[in-house]
Amino acid sequence: MHQAGDVRVEERENPRIIDPTDAVIRLTSTCICGSDLWPYRGVEPADHQVMGHEYMGVVEQIGSEVSDLQVGDHVIGSFVISDNTCEICRSGYPSKCVHAEFVAQTIGTQAERARIPHADGTLVKLPGEPDAELVPHVLAASDVLGTGWFGAVAAEVGPGKTVVVVGDGAVGLMAVLASKRLGAERIIAMSRQADRQELARFYGATYIVEERGDEGVARVMELTNGLGAHSVVEAVGTQESTMQAIGCTRPGGHMGFVGVNYDVRIPGIDLFFANIHLHGGPAPVRRFLPDLVRQIWDGEIQPGKVFDMTLPLEQAPQGYEAMDQRRAIKVLLTL
Amino acid sequence: MHQAGDVRVEERENPRIIDPTDAVIRLTSTCICGSDLWPYRGVEPADHQVMGHEYMGVVEQIGSEVSDLQVGDHVIGSFVISDNTCEICRSGYPSKCVHAEFVAQTIGTQAERARIPHADGTLVKLPGEPDAELVPHVLAASDVLGTGWFGAVAAEVGPGKTVVVVGDGAVGLMAVLASKRLGAERIIAMSRQADRQELARFYGATYIVEERGDEGVARVMELTNGLGAHSVVEAVGTQESTMQAIGCTRPGGHMGFVGVNYDVRIPGIDLFFANIHLHGGPAPVRRFLPDLVRQIWDGEIQPGKVFDMTLPLEQAPQGYEAMDQRRAIKVLLTL
Repeated sequence: MHQAGDVRVEERENPRIIDPTDAVIRLTSTCICGSDLWPYRGVEPADHQVMGHEYMGVVEQIGSEVSDLQVGDHVIGSFVISDNTCEICRSGYPSKCVHAEFVAQTIGTQAERARIPHADGTLVKLPGEPDAELVPHVLAASDVLGTGWFGAVAAEVGPGKTVVVVGDGAVGLMAVLASKRLGAERIIAMSRQADRQELARFYGATYIVEERGDEGVARVMELTNGLGAHSVVEAVGTQESTMQAIGCTRPGGHMGFVGVNYDVRIPGIDLFFANIHLHGGPAPVRRFLPDLVRQIWDGEIQPGKVFDMTLPLEQAPQGYEAMDQRRAIKVLLTL
Repeated sequence: MHQAGDVRVEERENPRIIDPTDAVIRLTSTCICGSDLWPYRGVEPADHQVMGHEYMGVVEQIGSEVSDLQVGDHVIGSFVISDNTCEICRSGYPSKCVHAEFVAQTIGTQAERARIPHADGTLVKLPGEPDAELVPHVLAASDVLGTGWFGAVAAEVGPGKTVVVVGDGAVGLMAVLASKRLGAERIIAMSRQADRQELARFYGATYIVEERGDEGVARVMELTNGLGAHSVVEAVGTQESTMQAIGCTRPGGHMGFVGVNYDVRIPGIDLFFANIHLHGGPAPVRRFLPDLVRQIWDGEIQPGKVFDMTLPLEQAPQGYEAMDQRRAIKVLLTL
């Protein structure tokens, strides 16, 4: 991305092993994330940077200290490099590993090849080569599924609970899927777009609320005896959506938030009197990856339906444009 | 309080039963809270309002629907009226009972008598009349002990954990006591005042950190291998102390916050990248009261040491002045 709105596919030098814990992978598919739109729209700075942080591929080279992977292995990883052995990783937060590094900022996986540091910790070996039908489902686990899943876990979704999901982007839809899988009794999806509402229902939404802001909160209150939802997942990241999510959570309830932009300011007093639990941040996707891959391989979930456009990598700029204009929920890029 | 800085003790009409679930109690002791200083200092509005929300006393009258209490019972209650039967109370959040009402704003227990709505739900019967030595310990349970306890519970304090308590007021000191009782391995109290440091050590603090802001965070990082504390209790409520508490919490760790002023704005992006759990608000003291009273009655804890000044109710204005000038941690008012 040369600058906001200007994405180009260009030849770059092949990555190579630098540290002995590195692997170099050949990407078999990648995609465009909703968060890639922040720099594309100029909300975050963009200055001649590599893009992409979702990926699956085949191991091409390994460093001398890589022991769990072999050349030829099919692998998937998340958007944060993690050693999976430090105290923070072991406590479930590879997103904040002491060796954490954001793939988006330094590596960029909208590419044919990528160097993956701390390969043993970061990459998860797939059971084999996924067939064409399985590819979008597996690729979704790299970020949107893992992030939506974390949103639901952070919101303590569970049996008997009423869940609200704020946001109908890919992550919001995956939070609906996760809520269903985690046993939620009722799932209220906040969405205004017919095709996304349909997908939300496919993934398990039992109610759709089209209103936003205070009106959206009022509608959720009507549906919950005036108490609010037990669990709320915030998957948009604006000031309005954040306050809407806080407002929808019942006292003592849990709000999980998995997106945020730089302008959000939460008034302490509102959070105080809400008396809720709040947890979120960059999703520790690596924690969930092995189980999510298993669920996908066993056909239990079909997260890949969030990809409603597929383009060859060379046409990535058209993919950004389609997502920016909300003509596509999520674009898969083939290689 | 006629206006900021102007507290007077005046004759008012005796309270009487209005609703059949009311009780009228004769106060046997009450006190001044750190939060009473917000209006006293003009940080919150103050306009000819009743003051006080901590109380113990004897039941003088009961309404026709009060069934768990009798005239003559010695009782204690918290700063929020709660029915203790609604869905929110039963989930552990009497602070947000569907019948919640703040004692401070409408009742005011810096007084000889008080009408307590929803008496069965709000009041907890004491085992008997506390002797003079026990009085300050029991009274502390009404707010500061219960609030500090909630702060520690909200921060998920437990065995093997390192805890940071931001704030050396009565609530902060009670959070230290609670952390010790809940099994914390290390308790870092952030305090600059020698007498409060001493009390913090008495209650279980193992380290004292005098630095504040970024320097305070850096010191905590040094003490925690650069990772931060598992549990942090925020018991001040300013912008600086809130950000300090967020900064001291390790990724995946828990921050409990029990005080906040109206000016605090939490940058969403800082909370996001901290990857922590946050829980707080008005403490559901009623949830903890029966167990806290038992611990006090059995001599297991001595929370009343936070009262370092005792005055007759008529001298309440001098008590406010002493606390405002930090000459007293907390003032007990006798009747």
